[in-house]
Amino acid sequence: MATMPTGTNNIPQKEATTTSKPNRGGLEGIVAATTALSKVEGTAGRLIYHGYNIHDVARTTTFEEIAHLLWFGHLPNKTELSSLKARLVAERTLPTTVLQTLRALPSTTEPLDALRTAVSAWGAATIKGKPTIEQAIAVTARFLVFLAAFQRLRNGLEPVESQLELGHAANYLYLLNGQKPQERHVKALNAYLVLLADHGMNASTFTARVVASTESDIASALVAAIGALKGPLHGGAPSKVQDMLDAIGTVEQAESWLRAAVARGDRLMGFGHRVYKTEDPRAEELRELARLADPREFILARRVEELALAILEEQKPGHRLYTNVEFYSAALLSSVGLPGDLFTPTFAVSRVAGWTAHILEQVRNNRLIRPEAEYTGPMDLKFVPLGAR
Amino acid sequence: MATMPTGTNNIPQKEATTTSKPNRGGLEGIVAATTALSKVEGTAGRLIYHGYNIHDVARTTTFEEIAHLLWFGHLPNKTELSSLKARLVAERTLPTTVLQTLRALPSTTEPLDALRTAVSAWGAATIKGKPTIEQAIAVTARFLVFLAAFQRLRNGLEPVESQLELGHAANYLYLLNGQKPQERHVKALNAYLVLLADHGMNASTFTARVVASTESDIASALVAAIGALKGPLHGGAPSKVQDMLDAIGTVEQAESWLRAAVARGDRLMGFGHRVYKTEDPRAEELRELARLADPREFILARRVEELALAILEEQKPGHRLYTNVEFYSAALLSSVGLPGDLFTPTFAVSRVAGWTAHILEQVRNNRLIRPEAEYTGPMDLKFVPLGAR
Repeated sequence: MATMPTGTNNIPQKEATTTSKPNRGGLEGIVAATTALSKVEGTAGRLIYHGYNIHDVARTTTFEEIAHLLWFGHLPNKTELSSLKARLVAERTLPTTVLQTLRALPSTTEPLDALRTAVSAWGAATIKGKPTIEQAIAVTARFLVFLAAFQRLRNGLEPVESQLELGHAANYLYLLNGQKPQERHVKALNAYLVLLADHGMNASTFTARVVASTESDIASALVAAIGALKGPLHGGAPSKVQDMLDAIGTVEQAESWLRAAVARGDRLMGFGHRVYKTEDPRAEELRELARLADPREFILARRVEELALAILEEQKPGHRLYTNVEFYSAALLSSVGLPGDLFTPTFAVSRVAGWTAHILEQVRNNRLIRPEAEYTGPMDLKFVPLGAR
Repeated sequence: MATMPTGTNNIPQKEATTTSKPNRGGLEGIVAATTALSKVEGTAGRLIYHGYNIHDVARTTTFEEIAHLLWFGHLPNKTELSSLKARLVAERTLPTTVLQTLRALPSTTEPLDALRTAVSAWGAATIKGKPTIEQAIAVTARFLVFLAAFQRLRNGLEPVESQLELGHAANYLYLLNGQKPQERHVKALNAYLVLLADHGMNASTFTARVVASTESDIASALVAAIGALKGPLHGGAPSKVQDMLDAIGTVEQAESWLRAAVARGDRLMGFGHRVYKTEDPRAEELRELARLADPREFILARRVEELALAILEEQKPGHRLYTNVEFYSAALLSSVGLPGDLFTPTFAVSRVAGWTAHILEQVRNNRLIRPEAEYTGPMDLKFVPLGAR
C-alpha cells in the first residue's frame, strides 16, 4: 500500500484541542502551538502561505520573496526585496571551520548528514544568544553553500565561490556545477524552493520549535530539524521515487513493473498523504514544472503516475490515493541535474526559510513544549547489590 | 523569582490525556508516549528507574549498571556487567573524522556545541540504518571521549587514549586530565552519572523521540537532544549556579549578596522545579555527594542554599521552593574539577544512556509524533506581482 508521508503531515483543527478520546500517542489531533505562517487544508487541498494561496505564488515569485513573507509577514516591495537579497548575498560565504569540517567527512557520507554536521559546526563557531532574523538570513543563505561544497568535495572537486549577481536558486546550481545554470533549470528549482518553504506543523518544524522552546539557539534547532527531515516518514524518501522511475526505465515496461511490485506487496513511492484527502496542491504545481523542466523525462513520470493511481484504485476500490509532493519533486530535481541523495537536502535548502520563521515565531511568545509520558514499567522492585545478583 | 526547570520537567499523569480544558500550547498535561524506563512522581518526590527507587541505586551502583537497566530492562549480574563493560571499553575510540572535526572548531566553541558537532560527524561517518542497541553502546562510550578530546584541544593539549581498565566515570576524568583520578572524585562523578541518566519525558528526551519517530537515525536523534539540552529552560543553566557561588565568594558575604540579588529582582539559580512539589530526590543525593567530594566548598554551597530558601520563603510566604538538581550538580561537578562550561555537556554524558534507551523504546513500537498547529494568520489575501507592490 502506498502511504507516503512527507514534510507535510499536518492540518490544524481547532476542535482537536478539546477532544476527550484517549490519546494513542503521536500527539495526533493535539494543537502544540499557534502559527501565522502557513495553513494546510487537507480536505480542500489548499496550502496558504500567510494569506496567499500557493497556486498564486508558485510561479510568480522568487524564493527570496517567500522568505521575506515568512520572516517579515508581508511580500516585499522592490526596495525591500533588494535589501533582503543584498543581505542574503553578503552571507553566502563558506567559513573555514565549516570547510574543514566538510573535508573531515568521508566521501561516502550522506549529503544530509554532511549538512547537519556543517550547520552544527557553523553554529558552534558563530552563534551566540537567542535566535534573530539576522541569524535566520545568515543560515538560509548558507545551507546551499554548505551542501554544494560537500557535493563538490565528495566528487574530488574544490568548492567554487558564490556569484553575487545570481539569485538564490541560480547560485545553488552554480555552486554545484561551477557554471552558469540554464534559465529553465533556475525557474524550475526556484519554484520548487517556493513550494516547499513551509507546511504547517510538520515533524521537522515541530522538532525545531521544541528545541527553540527550551531557549536553545537557532543552530541547535536547525540541526534537530535536519535530523527529523532525514526520517523516511518525513522528508527522507523522495529519492526512492527516482529509484523507482529508474528501475522502470521505459514507458513500455511501466505497467508490468508496477503490477509486479504491487503483487509482491511493495509500496509504490510518491502516493498518499496523511493530511491531504485530495490532490496535494504542490503536486499539481510540481507536475507542470516537471513537464516544463524536462519534457522527455516527464513522459515516463506521467505515465507511471497514471498507471500507479489506476492500479492502486483497483487494489482498494473507493480508497482513493493521490499523488503526493514527493513524486514530482523527484522528477523536477532530477531534471535540473541533482543526484537522488541531494533531493532531501534540497528540501532542507527550501524548508530552512520555514524552520527559521517558526523558530522566531516560537521564541517571540515562548512556552516550553514538553508533554508527558505514561509510565508502564515495574514499580517497587527490591534492590539487590551486584554481589548478590 | 526562582523557577528553574532542568532536564527534568515532567510528570506522567494518566488523567491528563482526557483533559477537556483548552490547550494553552506547550503540550502541558498531554501524554505523548508510554515509557517503561523511568517515572517521576512530583508530589511524592520520587524518581523510579524501571522499578528501582533512585535512593536505592544512587550510591550502590555504577553508571554501567544503570545503563544496562535502561537498555536491557534489568540490573545486570556480574557476567552481564562484565560483558557490557567490555563492549563499552571496545568502543572508547576517537575516530579520525571526529578528531579532525574537533580540530576545525575554534577554541572559543562552547563544549556542548563541540559535542553536538562531534556526534553529528560520528553519525555521518559511521551510522547506517535503524537505531540498535550496538549503536547505543557505541555512542554512550564515546560522548565522554569526544568531550574530553575537545576539552584538551581547546587548552592546547593533545587528546590522550582511554584506559581500558578504568570504569566509565574514571575514564572520563582520566581523559580530561591525562592522569589517574582520585577515588573520591570517581565515586562522586559516578553517582552523578547514575542520578542524571533518565528522567521521564523531559524536553531533550522528547526531542530525541520526535526525531526517532520519523524513522531517522540514532545520531540525528541524539544531535537533536543535545540541542534541546542546551536551552536554559532545560539543561543549560547549572553553570549559572557556580557563577553565583563564585560571585558570593565567602559564607560571610552570602546573606547580603542574596538579599541584594533578590531586591534587584534577579533569579536565584538552583531553586524551584516544574514537577517536584517537594525536594527533588536527586538534590538530596547530590547534597550528600557534594559534602563528601569537597567538604570545604560544601560549606559555602550549604549556607547559600539555607539562606536562599529562607529569603525566598520570606518573599513569597506559603509558596515554598525547593533546591533543584542543578544546585548541587554544580557543586559536585566543580568539586571533581570540571569547569562550568562542562557541566551541561557532562549532564549529556549521563543522559545519553536515557536518550538512547528512549530512542530504542520509541522505534520498537513507533508512531510518528506530530501534533498540529492552529493557524492564526490572514486568509484570502489577493496576490499582487512584485512590479505592482
